[in-house]
Amino acid sequence: MDTTYINGVNLGNWLVLEKWMNPALFDGTTAEDEYYLPTQLDPAVYEARIRTHRAEYITERDFATIRSWGLNSVRIPVPYFVFGDRPPFIGCVEELDKAFNWADKYGLSILIDLHTAPMSQNGFDNGGISGVCKWAQLPDEVEFVLTVLERLARRYGRRDALLGIEVINEPNTTASWDNMNVTERYKAVDPELAEGTGPIAFDWLEDFYVAAYHRLREQGGLPQSKAVVFHDGFDLYRWKDFLDDAKGFVNVIFDTHQYLMMAEIVGCPQTVEGYDGFVKGTYAPMIEEMSRRFPVIVGEWCLFNSVGCGVDTHGGQSVLNGEEGAAAETLSPQEKRDLYQGVAKSQLEAWSKGHGHYYWNYKLLTDTVNTPGWIGWDAWDLGRCIAQDWYPVGHR
Amino acid sequence: MDTTYINGVNLGNWLVLEKWMNPALFDGTTAEDEYYLPTQLDPAVYEARIRTHRAEYITERDFATIRSWGLNSVRIPVPYFVFGDRPPFIGCVEELDKAFNWADKYGLSILIDLHTAPMSQNGFDNGGISGVCKWAQLPDEVEFVLTVLERLARRYGRRDALLGIEVINEPNTTASWDNMNVTERYKAVDPELAEGTGPIAFDWLEDFYVAAYHRLREQGGLPQSKAVVFHDGFDLYRWKDFLDDAKGFVNVIFDTHQYLMMAEIVGCPQTVEGYDGFVKGTYAPMIEEMSRRFPVIVGEWCLFNSVGCGVDTHGGQSVLNGEEGAAAETLSPQEKRDLYQGVAKSQLEAWSKGHGHYYWNYKLLTDTVNTPGWIGWDAWDLGRCIAQDWYPVGHR
Repeated sequence: MDTTYINGVNLGNWLVLEKWMNPALFDGTTAEDEYYLPTQLDPAVYEARIRTHRAEYITERDFATIRSWGLNSVRIPVPYFVFGDRPPFIGCVEELDKAFNWADKYGLSILIDLHTAPMSQNGFDNGGISGVCKWAQLPDEVEFVLTVLERLARRYGRRDALLGIEVINEPNTTASWDNMNVTERYKAVDPELAEGTGPIAFDWLEDFYVAAYHRLREQGGLPQSKAVVFHDGFDLYRWKDFLDDAKGFVNVIFDTHQYLMMAEIVGCPQTVEGYDGFVKGTYAPMIEEMSRRFPVIVGEWCLFNSVGCGVDTHGGQSVLNGEEGAAAETLSPQEKRDLYQGVAKSQLEAWSKGHGHYYWNYKLLTDTVNTPGWIGWDAWDLGRCIAQDWYPVGHR
Repeated sequence: MDTTYINGVNLGNWLVLEKWMNPALFDGTTAEDEYYLPTQLDPAVYEARIRTHRAEYITERDFATIRSWGLNSVRIPVPYFVFGDRPPFIGCVEELDKAFNWADKYGLSILIDLHTAPMSQNGFDNGGISGVCKWAQLPDEVEFVLTVLERLARRYGRRDALLGIEVINEPNTTASWDNMNVTERYKAVDPELAEGTGPIAFDWLEDFYVAAYHRLREQGGLPQSKAVVFHDGFDLYRWKDFLDDAKGFVNVIFDTHQYLMMAEIVGCPQTVEGYDGFVKGTYAPMIEEMSRRFPVIVGEWCLFNSVGCGVDTHGGQSVLNGEEGAAAETLSPQEKRDLYQGVAKSQLEAWSKGHGHYYWNYKLLTDTVNTPGWIGWDAWDLGRCIAQDWYPVGHR
């Protein structure tokens, strides 16, 4: 495998929508997620919004910018309908094709991340349909996802820029289900559709990963020089011995997502020292230990935390979850800079025990000035972090 | 007046569209300009494209970025239908309101630039309707534009961030008409509508500027601390004595637009030395001399030139004008850097004889990788110029 340390950023909300990052796309609807958006719009209007969004949100210019920040890779979340075979959703291989050409020109690698599955693998808004988590129980849809992976491998497997393919983002397992509190935090619009929603078992997930690996390498023809990436289902230690069982896997990477808001949920104190201590005491040793077993990347993380928001966000909940947000900044610009530079430094040090990281996210359209409740949420936006000297740019 | 040297950038193509900068908005139509776009789209689709574009193209994030580059001002082109009273076009004061709030937060000033007029003041694509230049001949529309200026002054005149209001962008005068070759370069779709198209006389323009000044200051209540900005109609020298005539004008700025592609049209050699010589021999002395009469800004300029494109663009014409563009880069990255750093340096030195400058443009969606013919056109995009070290950033 490529031993280059990954210094990357996610292109989230481009091909997989998240309402909180892009509220205008959801204007005039009550939809909270990608699944319900087309049910509330005229098809031509839906198409116009989606196509305009995709043509504007990420362009050649952004690849030039990312490169200028000294980064070397982008992780691109794609939906299960990437090939356009699941109406009313609109496929996006043309956009992905363009991204590979931009990556070639600007010297970036691409990790394709299958971010959603039909009836969802996690029940999050970003899983496509809030409050529903049933994909793993639907054998036809599991098979469908495997065919998507195969087709991605066939189409992009021999592109120089391809770093690898992540088989499914954030499966919500028995390890994470209770903490994530999905059924409360993301209310299902249609309780009938949500019936049977529940966590994914690790045994099942292991079997799925084995199947996905073979489908990618064999049917998909994914060269061994390209990584197969597995998300850890929110428990990295759980995979300790997974690759030992004479599976013959080559070039596998484990992806773990670590957010300070999740640290807060498990009791990390909401102070600068608290964050620093948690990162050094929990994240760093975990990545160091597991990196002896397999390459580990932190495929999602960011500087966001409750201190920067000026309120306890109860695990990163926003006005969209009924939380209020601060009415005004509680920190001075200098205090914000100190806070974010501090958590950037400690996290980047922790990630350096592994194989690399991707910031979540490159860009947010969230407006902290003209819409109430969003103070502190700009820390999710790497562009704004760099513009405000919160995040260290290696390049200059 | 505020004596701060203006170091700014245009937010072109946000509220006034230009097809070459944003081709996807025009997909599925033959429209070449903003006027014809709604005639070829279902009204709901038109609205969806425009609103999505406006919500994504410029956001809070961009104001943070512009500030991080060490710039202090943005020039925002607005259309004559900014107040939403000219259907089918959609007003945009809400977007402009937001921009003023962002400007407050990030410490930028705003020059509002009325960029179009009904039936156009120049016949350019960016004047709203290609090949038509009749506005100045239509007294009702001249009066309408004066009411727009008044209303802009009333709405934004007391905003801290307001630097000034530019009464009309690039009136195509008898000084520029032949060089601009409008009727050939921008063919009118409807010859009947274009009938009578012709240049604007300076005498007429002087009278209009006098009227606009009074309407802004008196009916509009624009404070004297806010500038009234006049475009020079492509002949800065022509205005030498304009303010001498006991008009009693306070805080007036003249705006001159200087593009290397126009220098090429009047014979500037297409070489690095040629550009440097022209800028030093023609632009710099003009700005120096006229700055003794009134404050001068270069409200539009950029690094773009034919050498960077690898072909003679015949004055900045593109594939949209039937020109071919180079099939491959003719310069190495290092040669490009040398070229653009050179023309940046000489132009910035020339502009420093005056009161400041605004780069055209902050951003382009034009894709030089996936669409043929656009090699070299990324030099119009300040973001890409900075990302590629073509443009010097003062800030870091």
